[in-house]
Amino acid sequence: MEFPSKIVEEAVKQFARIPGIGKKTALRMVLHLLKQDTENVQDLTKSLMNLKTELQYCTECHNISDAALCNICADKNRNHEIICVVEDLRDVMAIENTNQYRGIYHVLGGLISPVDGIGPADIKIEPLYNRIERAGVHELIFALAATMEGDTTAYFISKKLQGSNLKISSIARGIAIGGELEYADEITLGRSILSRIPYSV
Amino acid sequence: MEFPSKIVEEAVKQFARIPGIGKKTALRMVLHLLKQDTENVQDLTKSLMNLKTELQYCTECHNISDAALCNICADKNRNHEIICVVEDLRDVMAIENTNQYRGIYHVLGGLISPVDGIGPADIKIEPLYNRIERAGVHELIFALAATMEGDTTAYFISKKLQGSNLKISSIARGIAIGGELEYADEITLGRSILSRIPYSV
Repeated sequence: MEFPSKIVEEAVKQFARIPGIGKKTALRMVLHLLKQDTENVQDLTKSLMNLKTELQYCTECHNISDAALCNICADKNRNHEIICVVEDLRDVMAIENTNQYRGIYHVLGGLISPVDGIGPADIKIEPLYNRIERAGVHELIFALAATMEGDTTAYFISKKLQGSNLKISSIARGIAIGGELEYADEITLGRSILSRIPYSV
Repeated sequence: MEFPSKIVEEAVKQFARIPGIGKKTALRMVLHLLKQDTENVQDLTKSLMNLKTELQYCTECHNISDAALCNICADKNRNHEIICVVEDLRDVMAIENTNQYRGIYHVLGGLISPVDGIGPADIKIEPLYNRIERAGVHELIFALAATMEGDTTAYFISKKLQGSNLKISSIARGIAIGGELEYADEITLGRSILSRIPYSV
């Protein structure tokens, strides 16, 4: 693509750096911003800079937070003996939306991925061990992606906790509610048979 | 969606204002920026502000430009007697990519759309008339979208130019090169028969 203006080209390049944003989408975004008032563009840039300057991370669970302690960790009504280990903010939001979980979280901020050069020290695994030791945590639930990286991370964390009295589990994998068996992939269906659950009436 | 942080929520809201960007995409973009260095985010915000502060529009064709006269209008080797009328920057880039056009452009900056409250005075139609009068323009080519808005705009412009010696045409509509007839929609196929072109060997 050849741009008639270096300024537009630069803005498109900056947007296109974000994964999932191609050059055409970036150009569409830039052309939209061009039509906006200067104040609107200022509002956008200010809120983006706030992400880097104002945002804090919860000192307990390492989730994004507006204060030193996030709302969930500060909530005395929640069960602080159960920790759900997730990758990032989106997972916390997804689980919170179910209204099925009343424990607290631990946000790793990534998954172990040797291919991408992300080791155990690059994500918040050590603080998780400290938390478990310090607080009276009884149960750990892994709610990580069903990928190589997710499995590796869960394995790494649980390996070091072997021998402790901690109850460790992982969210169930299986056929989605309302899902048709014929459309399920073989691995999911196979696993759902292996980890079948007792049928109760 | 309930966000654990007002700052993240605000940034997501700002991104989601851009057409084509949903809340999930906006959140993905925000989480990506969170992981970037402050300088990278600064580079992005700076280039976005430059769009509003530094950018100029060509005084002739009203295309986005880094100078008072854009590269195309300043090019003496191009045919300044033919003007191609387009909606925005993307159309100029698309036509330039074909390497088939050596005339100059006129960028309207929008199309007449009563539904959206955009009238003839809101886009650069008047400057087009002035250009035609002033310079020795012989031919006008409409390269506008094949929509109600595109047709209305072309009709409005050509109506006022009736009686002049100007040669007015529109880009050809028809089956795409390499396109299969059975997959073409009826309107396009119907029009392509009506506006059939002489076959020459």
